[in-house]
Order: sequence, then structure tokens, then C-alpha cells
Amino acid sequence: MMPQQPTCIKLMTRWHHAQPQRVKDELVVEEPLEVRVNQTSLIVVMRTPGHDFELAAGFLYTEGLITSSDDIDIIAYCEDSEDNIVNVRLASGLHLDVAAGWQRNFHANASCGLCGKMTIDAVKLQVPEMKVATDFQLCPQTLYQLNARLRKAQSVFEKTGGLHAAGLFNENGELLIIREDIGRHNAVDKVIGQALLADMLPLERHILMVSGRASFEIVQKALFARIPIIVAVSAASTLAVELAQEGNLTLIGFMRGESMAVYSCPERISKAGAFTP
Amino acid sequence: MMPQQPTCIKLMTRWHHAQPQRVKDELVVEEPLEVRVNQTSLIVVMRTPGHDFELAAGFLYTEGLITSSDDIDIIAYCEDSEDNIVNVRLASGLHLDVAAGWQRNFHANASCGLCGKMTIDAVKLQVPEMKVATDFQLCPQTLYQLNARLRKAQSVFEKTGGLHAAGLFNENGELLIIREDIGRHNAVDKVIGQALLADMLPLERHILMVSGRASFEIVQKALFARIPIIVAVSAASTLAVELAQEGNLTLIGFMRGESMAVYSCPERISKAGAFTP
Repeated sequence: MMPQQPTCIKLMTRWHHAQPQRVKDELVVEEPLEVRVNQTSLIVVMRTPGHDFELAAGFLYTEGLITSSDDIDIIAYCEDSEDNIVNVRLASGLHLDVAAGWQRNFHANASCGLCGKMTIDAVKLQVPEMKVATDFQLCPQTLYQLNARLRKAQSVFEKTGGLHAAGLFNENGELLIIREDIGRHNAVDKVIGQALLADMLPLERHILMVSGRASFEIVQKALFARIPIIVAVSAASTLAVELAQEGNLTLIGFMRGESMAVYSCPERISKAGAFTP
Repeated sequence: MMPQQPTCIKLMTRWHHAQPQRVKDELVVEEPLEVRVNQTSLIVVMRTPGHDFELAAGFLYTEGLITSSDDIDIIAYCEDSEDNIVNVRLASGLHLDVAAGWQRNFHANASCGLCGKMTIDAVKLQVPEMKVATDFQLCPQTLYQLNARLRKAQSVFEKTGGLHAAGLFNENGELLIIREDIGRHNAVDKVIGQALLADMLPLERHILMVSGRASFEIVQKALFARIPIIVAVSAASTLAVELAQEGNLTLIGFMRGESMAVYSCPERISKAGAFTP
């Protein structure tokens, strides 16, 4: 059993040129977490321990299996599970058809041929389009600051080089929640789960930043939480862009210094910023 | 429907300081692929199109669902599936209990508490330990060359910044197979699937290199293919190191220039190299 800490110390051999040396190294902890709903197993995720309840809540929410924090009665570790099984007890009278939910979300509709369009349609069925409100515009300078703020907040774990970070910012560019995890999706689920449990949803005037790339699933999760802007440090995939376009979400990639790539809904970024070009 | 290409061109808005500009950009394609076994749906993976048959074969092999290329009769796209559904027809008389296989591999043994140790035990049950053969030793210099060779081979896609690469090298450090994918696991499955279909398995004198980090699942996949050495450009997780130690696999991380971190089985690296320290 590994300790329930985000990192741990191990002995390893560091080679430099032709010289080996035994040294202590800090590693990111990766551990399986089983999420149960009313004691029925839903999924096993490989995650970095910590904020497991937020992870479970966020996962259920961003996969469309629950729709509000009111759907949750109690989240707790199962006894004798060494903190590796979390059970979500749903509010009285609420039943989740785990098998059907799984089928809907993870197997799309194979009967009439599976393709990207259909996966997007399946997600869209559950997520109404976001309106591009003209009163919610950000200037580039606000967006350019997010990366440094996220990096500064994650500096504790940065030394291990093994964690993805996800941060939730408000419209002034202030960091509200940061979570780190060996899995990119988990970091996002932990952020949204924390927001869900704190009754902050929907996040209609917020920005989600991720330390790596933006995939289809990250956009899907943001859409469920009604987050209108995603900023990724690295690239976006075609399917991520397509889903963002369909959902009226502003997807930004390659955020580096004062430069960024805006893949969808560029109208949320105001040209008349608070600074001179 | 997206084109079945690894990359495609999209219009986007590139901001630099306060100036937006509409430009064409190259994006990595991400598309769902459904893998069926004897026409029964097994999994939907989000992957970069290309080498789909290798991906399907590699996935089945590295999850322990088939044990040799002889288990496969035919791999083909399903008709009218727009190349997004692959069916693997097993060899005559062979049946795969998809539900049981899934349960075994992805849900471990929840009945007596789920923890890292048990997941490792479940994998170990299927993968006999690798012997650390004293006649298979590599000098650091051979290992230090791999990263540059992998990067050189992947330069076609490097510009998009959105693909993971996995490469299979022989003991002389020669690159035999390289595959790229938006998913790290998929790139490894495509490499091992290609090796499987080319009857190169077991890969007992080979090295697997991955462009990113080494997680539990990457080590698991390498163990199934009997690959004794994994080299990762970035960090390794605790569970990856633990599984590598248990399986006598040499796990190397942070391969940068002439420096590397050896997390397990350092005895496969010879101190008496072909160069002077």
C-alpha cells in the first residue's frame, strides 16, 4: 500500500554521462481509485491521491451522470478500502442507471456507425449550447497572465515534473481553484468537483486553464460545467475544436507569453483592451 | 466526418500581444475508434487515425486478451463505419469472454478492497517475471542516443505539438518502429501491435521509448510484450516504478542529453561502456 500523498521519495540511480549515483528522488504517486455509486462500481481511475471526493463528484457531473450537488447525499471512503474506494450515496429517491449511463457516455451509438460527429451529437444532447454573451468579454492581457499564475501556484509539485494542473479563474484572472493530478482529466474533474460541492456552478463567467493539451474530453467536461473559455498551454485536437465550436466555447491553445491560438468563438476576446498594442 | 489523416488544417485566430490575425493552423486529428472482437464491442478509444489495425491488435495483446498473432484471423474495418470501427475476428475456435476480460483488467478485484498492490498482483498473474539476463546489458551511450533518434523520426508531426511518440529500438539503439498518437497508450499499442503482427514478439532484447511520462499502464503493456527496458523523456509514477521492480523491467525516466534517472533494475546498464567517462 502506497501512502496517500501526492508525492513520495524513492531511491534511484541517476546517471550523468558515464557515472551512476544512488540518490533519493521525489515521485508522483499514482494509485487506482474505484468510484462507486450507491455501492455499485462505476469506474476505476488511476489518479494522484488527494481531493478524491471532489474527483468522484466532478467525474459524475462532467460525465452527465448527476446534474447538481443536490443529487449527492454523502461521499465517503469505503471502510477497509485504504482510501482507494469512494462511494457516492445519491440523494434519497435518486437512482442512477450506471450501466446505461456508461453505455451512453463511453460507447456512444455504435448501432448506426460510430464517428466523431455522433460522439459530439451525444454530448450535445446533454449540454445546451452556451450563448456567447456580449457582456462577457476578456482582454488578451487578462488571458496572458493566467499561465504564470497557474505555474506559480503549482510550484510545490513542479519539481517532480509529473503532474498535470488545472486551474479555475474568474473573469478578472484571479485563480480560485487549482488541482494537480497525474491524469489531465482527473485534475479537471477535481476542479469542477470542488466547484460543484461549493455550489459555484454553473461557471458561466469563469476560465478553465490546463497545463497540457486540450482534448475532446476536456472540452466536454467544461461544457457540462458551463465554462465559456478554456486555455491550454499546448495544442488542441480536431475533435476538441469541433466540440468547442458546436458548444460556443472559446478554446485557446498554445498560450505562451503574450501569444495564443484561438480555435473557436474568438468574439469573447475584446480587441479594445486596457493596454496599447 | 473528419478525414482519416493524422493532421488537418483549420482556420484560427492567432493573437500576438494585442493583435489578432486569422491564419491557417495544423491540428492533430482526434477521432473515436471502436474496437470489436467477433463483432462484440470491446472499447471506444480516442485516437489519431492511422495504423488502426495495429492499435486494435496491440490493445488486445497488451491487455492480456490475446496471447499471439495466431489468435487473430482477420482484422478489418466494419462496412459503412467510415473507418471508425475495427472488428477483430479471432482464430477459429477461439472465444474471448469480453465481459470477463474487461472485468479482470479494468476493475481489478474490488471484492477484497482495491489498492495498488492488488492491481499489480492482477497484472503479475498474467505476466511472468522477466529474468534479468546478464548477457543483455546496454552501455549508457546507447541509451543517450535514443531520444534524438526518436525526435528525428517524428519531425513530420512535431510541428503540431500535439502527438505522443513511442519507438521500439533494438539493442544497438536502432529505431525499428515509431508510431505517434494523441494518446500515449495508443502510440505504445500501435508499436506493440505492429511488432505482434510482424511476428517479432517477444521483444526480449528491445527498448521501448516514450516521448512523455511513464505511467503504470505503459509498464504493463511493455511487460506483456516482454520488453526489458523502457525509456521515458519525463517522469515516472510510483505505481509504474513498483510494477517495473516487480517485473524486473528497467524503467528509465528524465532522459535528457547524457543524463537519466534509472528507477528499477539498474543492472541492465553496464558501467564499462564503450566510451571513457
